[in-house]
Amino acid sequence: MFSPKFDELVQRLRILPGVGPKSAQRIALQLLARNRTGAQALAHALNDAVLHIQHCTVCRSLAESDICDICASPQRDQTLLCVVESAADVAAIEHSGGFRGRYFVLGGHLSPLDGIGPDEIGIPLLMSRLKAEPIEELILATNATVEGQATAHYLQAAWQSLSQLESTAVNGRKMPLKITRIAQGVPQGGELEYVDSHTLSQALQYRLTVR
Amino acid sequence: MFSPKFDELVQRLRILPGVGPKSAQRIALQLLARNRTGAQALAHALNDAVLHIQHCTVCRSLAESDICDICASPQRDQTLLCVVESAADVAAIEHSGGFRGRYFVLGGHLSPLDGIGPDEIGIPLLMSRLKAEPIEELILATNATVEGQATAHYLQAAWQSLSQLESTAVNGRKMPLKITRIAQGVPQGGELEYVDSHTLSQALQYRLTVR
Repeated sequence: MFSPKFDELVQRLRILPGVGPKSAQRIALQLLARNRTGAQALAHALNDAVLHIQHCTVCRSLAESDICDICASPQRDQTLLCVVESAADVAAIEHSGGFRGRYFVLGGHLSPLDGIGPDEIGIPLLMSRLKAEPIEELILATNATVEGQATAHYLQAAWQSLSQLESTAVNGRKMPLKITRIAQGVPQGGELEYVDSHTLSQALQYRLTVR
Repeated sequence: MFSPKFDELVQRLRILPGVGPKSAQRIALQLLARNRTGAQALAHALNDAVLHIQHCTVCRSLAESDICDICASPQRDQTLLCVVESAADVAAIEHSGGFRGRYFVLGGHLSPLDGIGPDEIGIPLLMSRLKAEPIEELILATNATVEGQATAHYLQAAWQSLSQLESTAVNGRKMPLKITRIAQGVPQGGELEYVDSHTLSQALQYRLTVR
């Protein structure tokens, strides 16, 4: 519209999730009219993040150094390992404050049709961690979607066949490793009338005894 | 969350309109996980735009050179000048394809309480253009808001008092200059039932004779 560099900026802004051509133009105009300093700071932060943030070599989450803060922390319970699909899930669980163990980020879920197999989601690294570290419980916290469930099932099966292959005891620990799956049910504040039927049937199936 | 540079990026992303802490984190994670090249290109485009896009010295719209493409174009009707509040309005009118004249961008509207007076919205430059250029019609296309209407009224009054002060003829043209205001009424596709009552009363008041 106004100049080639303006059009370039509008085009580039469209990589942001949910930003179409109209919002991209609105954002570009707003930044140029009202927040040029902010736009430059954002440019700097983007560059800096891309250049310096890599994947943690232990858990595959995001980190500026080889090992992320969570993996490096002696405060975290080394006997608990929580497997999630993405770094965003790590952020969500950390935000909930309900977990003091460590993580493993798959970086996706199994999707054979898209060429995403065990190697792509880091299963070999996960298995070697399960063998080498004093992990007592593996929490499968993949999404409650069909793909997430399938990935959780695969992980469970993979660990079982690996532990049978190697010996009855891996790393001196008695098998099997305890494997758990995050609970499914009615979300906090959920009104039964509006909860989908699959969630409701799961909530009934996994009901807890209260007294 | 993951590292200082990640937090910095999340913070900087919040300058984008409509982006709160949650979306900022989601955007940062998505860019780092799936589109690092895009993020770097965006950083480059932001920097480039801020450094090279300035205001056109004639119309105050955005331009990479001193004079924007519209002001520099001999194709545009020099007798028509359309006054708008922002460069976004220029983009919207250009997109509509309904105007072949030139523009003047106020960069806001009069707002005495915020210290935005005639000088801040470029009235002196507009008046000197009206005196120096062969403009025959001044189209007041400020927003149909209270502030936009007030600014349009002010512009009309300012030109009238200026032309009375100077002489009966400014730049050899007979006064008064034709001053128009964009039409207000029911928008295309608007159903009367859902149009607000002020718009409806305007649409009735300014009804057109069709035969």
